[in-house]
This record gives sequence, C-alpha cells and structure tokens, in this order.
Amino acid sequence: VDKLRYNIIDKKLKIIITPKEGKLDPSQLTFDEGKPPFDLILMLDAANIEQLGEMYDQNTELFFNLPTINIDHHASNEYFGKINLVDLTATSTCEILVALFESFGEKTIDETIATCLLTGIITDTGSFQNSNTTPKSLSIAAQLIGLGAHQQEIIQHVFKTKPLSMLKLWGKALTDIQRDAKHSLVWTTLNHKDFEEANATKEDTTGLINDLLSSAPDTNIVLLLSEKEPRMIHGSIRTREGIDAAKIAGLFGGGGHTGAAGFVLQDKDIKEAEKFVLKQIRTYQEREIKGGKVE
Amino acid sequence: VDKLRYNIIDKKLKIIITPKEGKLDPSQLTFDEGKPPFDLILMLDAANIEQLGEMYDQNTELFFNLPTINIDHHASNEYFGKINLVDLTATSTCEILVALFESFGEKTIDETIATCLLTGIITDTGSFQNSNTTPKSLSIAAQLIGLGAHQQEIIQHVFKTKPLSMLKLWGKALTDIQRDAKHSLVWTTLNHKDFEEANATKEDTTGLINDLLSSAPDTNIVLLLSEKEPRMIHGSIRTREGIDAAKIAGLFGGGGHTGAAGFVLQDKDIKEAEKFVLKQIRTYQEREIKGGKVE
Repeated sequence: VDKLRYNIIDKKLKIIITPKEGKLDPSQLTFDEGKPPFDLILMLDAANIEQLGEMYDQNTELFFNLPTINIDHHASNEYFGKINLVDLTATSTCEILVALFESFGEKTIDETIATCLLTGIITDTGSFQNSNTTPKSLSIAAQLIGLGAHQQEIIQHVFKTKPLSMLKLWGKALTDIQRDAKHSLVWTTLNHKDFEEANATKEDTTGLINDLLSSAPDTNIVLLLSEKEPRMIHGSIRTREGIDAAKIAGLFGGGGHTGAAGFVLQDKDIKEAEKFVLKQIRTYQEREIKGGKVE
Repeated sequence: VDKLRYNIIDKKLKIIITPKEGKLDPSQLTFDEGKPPFDLILMLDAANIEQLGEMYDQNTELFFNLPTINIDHHASNEYFGKINLVDLTATSTCEILVALFESFGEKTIDETIATCLLTGIITDTGSFQNSNTTPKSLSIAAQLIGLGAHQQEIIQHVFKTKPLSMLKLWGKALTDIQRDAKHSLVWTTLNHKDFEEANATKEDTTGLINDLLSSAPDTNIVLLLSEKEPRMIHGSIRTREGIDAAKIAGLFGGGGHTGAAGFVLQDKDIKEAEKFVLKQIRTYQEREIKGGKVE
C-alpha cells in the first residue's frame, strides 16, 4: 500500500487506498472486530445479572470479557460481579454510593450529585415512611441536604405531580371502593371505560393501591382490579397481618412478595373477573381461618 | 372551736364542728379560695397567648399569677412567657424539646417519649416533605429512632389510616376535578349529597387538597368547595408562584397564609357558590395578569 486517505461525505466514511501496484481485490478484504470501547461494567441496584434484561441479552459477551462491579443492597443479591459491594443494611444503593463517593475525596459530591443520591434514598424509603427506614438513611439524607441537594425539587417531582387524568381515574376507583368485613377484604375495580373517560393511561394506576387503598383500616387484604385493555385484567394485591400476597396472586398465575403481589387475567371483562377473583380469595381466606392461621 | 371532724358519705364532704360554747352562725361563714394547685404554666407550640383559646379565656387569672414558660418555633411568636425558649430555625416544637430533654440527663428520652417527639417532627415536616425540612430535623429523627421511637406506628396512624367514608368522598371530589388553563385554576366541588352518600363527616375532607388536588401540575390556584352542611359552603385554596391565597380568600371574607387559605359562604348551594367564586377568582387573576404580576 502506497497511500491511504479518507474523508467523510454525507455521513459516509470513504477510504481511498492507493496500492503500490496492481488492484485491490475486494475478496481479499477481511473484517476484525476491535476491542469494545469500554473498560469496565458497573452494575447498580441489580440483584442478579438477568435483571439487566435486554442490556445483558444483547451484550452477553461484553459481560464475559470485561471486569464487573456489582453495587447493591438487596438481600437476594447473587454476588455476580468480579467486585461486589453489597450492603444489605443499606436502605438503597444510593446510600452505599454516598460513602463510596466520599472516599474519592472531599468535594466529589456537588449539588447535582447530592440531588441524585437523595432521590434514590427518598424513593427507596417512600419518603422515610417504609419500614426499611433506618437512622442511617435519615442521617445521610441530612448530610446530602447539607451538601446542597435540592430536596423540594425531588419531592415535587416524585410525590407532588399527578396528571389530572390520574386524579380522575383514582377518583373513580375510590368512589367504587367496597368492603367485605367477614373476609377482611377491601377492593375496587376500574373498567376500560373508566380509563377512556378519565383520558388515563395504563400507568395512571401506579401508586393508587399503595398511596390510598392500603390506608383502609381494619382490613388484611386490599385488591385493585383494572381493565387496562379490553378484556385484559390486571390485579394488584396488598396484604397485612401475615397474609401472603404472593400466595393469593399465585391462585391466578401471578406472583410477588409477601406483602405485595400481582397477576393478569386474560379474556375476562371486569365483572366476570371480579366475581371469579372474589370467590377464590374468599375460599382461600375461609381455609386459612379454619386452618387456624387467621383469627 | 373544740373539735373538728369530717367524713365523706356519698361523695359529700361532711364537716362536723363542735364549738366550745354557743352555736355556729351560718351567716358568720366566709369562703376563701385557696391557691391554685399548680406551680407553673408550660405552653408549647403557641405563637401567642390567645391561641390557647378557651383554656386561656376561662383561666385568665392563672396566667397572671403563675410563672409561664413559652416553647415554640413559629416566626410569629410574641414572647409572652416569663421564660421564652423560641427557636425559629426548628421545624417543630418537638425538635426543640429533644435538646431540652437531653439536658435533663442521658436516659430522659425513653421509647415512649422518643415516639411522641418523633410524631411532632414527622407531622410538622409532612414526613420530611415540606420545605421547612432541615438537615437538623432529619438528624434528630435518626437519633430518636435510635432511641427506640416506633416510627412505623407513627406513619401508620398519621398517614396510612383513612376511613372508607373518607376514601369514597375523596373519590367523588377527584372524579369531578376541572381545569381552567387560562386562569391557571384547578377546582372541584362536593355537595351535601356527596357527604351523605359516602357516609362521610365534615372532617373527611381534611388532607384532600394538600394530599391530592395540589399535585395537579401546571396550575397556580387549587380550589375545593365543599357543602359540609346544606347551603353552607367551605372553600379551601392553595396557591403557587407568588399568588397570595389569603388575598383570594379575603374576596370572600376569609383569610389564611400566602400559600393556603380558606373561607365560608353562607346561604348558597354548591352550584351558586361555584359560579360566584369562579367568577371572582377569574376577575382577580385577569387583574393580576394585566397588572403585570403574573405572566
């Protein structure tokens, strides 16, 4: 090769090779992939590598070839990194990061970083209302506000902004709330028309069961059935007093945690779903009560 | 007097006086009031003495005769005590009490006291969401949880218990929410029938405007009109962006603070009240916009 030039025209890279003699034979060209332009993979708040979802599926090789650091606070963490910084007593991964960033030097945490870290702590503790709230999480929050975190901005965006469509949809759900004291059950339903009338999206039910329905007193099971698409029913369950929400969701092919679980029912309208689900839950509760688990 | 005996029969005190000679003449009896059985008056969280209300009106003399201690954190405090412990930087009076109790000795704050003090901090900061939240309030909360405060119990009682009647009433209010973008106004109404149908009390609107209506985005004035008794309309106003809620409430003979105010309209049904109030607020907003105060 005598000379190599290149230019870029219309976003196309044109490589001009002038051979010393003869002609360039396209069949002699080979392509090697260069090293990936990354040095390290840093994973935050993931209990296992599969939780990365598409990012992992589409780049599996990267995860084999690069060193990985795994920073997390979940009890279910699988220590899948080359380096694992897992603190099960932390309320959030952001709480762990505060100490890490401090070790980088005194001025590492500026206003913007403090705001981001505080956001993680506030969302993971439900604004210091969840049972995971520790003295440490409160002290670190104090420290971050001291470092200039924009606390009011976080609160405004995370908790105090609800589109009108969401408020209207919540209104519909609350108006129709029902109770079955015998089975310690409170429930409500949203049909597809409710979503249309409120001009609401599927996501507008987010928070409804946690923020409001779960505050109904003297009840151990709270249920929200919502027909997000026609004849496609999403069920959300919250439980108290040692009742396993995941077990109840399991009756309908769903799953989750002890206190919070969910399921999807295909090909039923909201009335059919309500009748079916209530019947099963009542039977479940009666069996549990007879079994002496619940008084 | 030779002898004095007394006994108590049927909750009646019988005093038996045996005079040395002669007879006791009832007209010679006089009655003196003894000293009040109190040594001190301790006032907490009151900006001025009138805020004590009935307690002050019915015992005015006590307040003149006894030494008084005034512990508070409000900027409007009038330093009316003999001793004034007023800290305007504290988020709550309970925050001030923590330091005071600590000065009494190391073990003064037990689990119960810690729970009470934390309740005051959590309610006055709106669970660390209000703009008055300081690093200090978070640190002290951390300390109180460390001392055994039952944080989850507080959260459960203060924020996570809402009677079904309240949830249904809130549902009705949210379903009917309306917006006037031109005047940056969001409002809703509850008529007396709504209260009856939800089986709700007058108090069940508490929190509705703060917790939910105020989260409507892109609006500077939020209004709730509720007909708590027939033809008796309560108005609640919340404002943002430098609009004075007290001024707007003043249009209807009410008052309050810059961001939150209220008023009562007599002898109007909800439809009449809605029409009347909206008209006045729109005129007010247009004047403000013309006056260049709002863009």
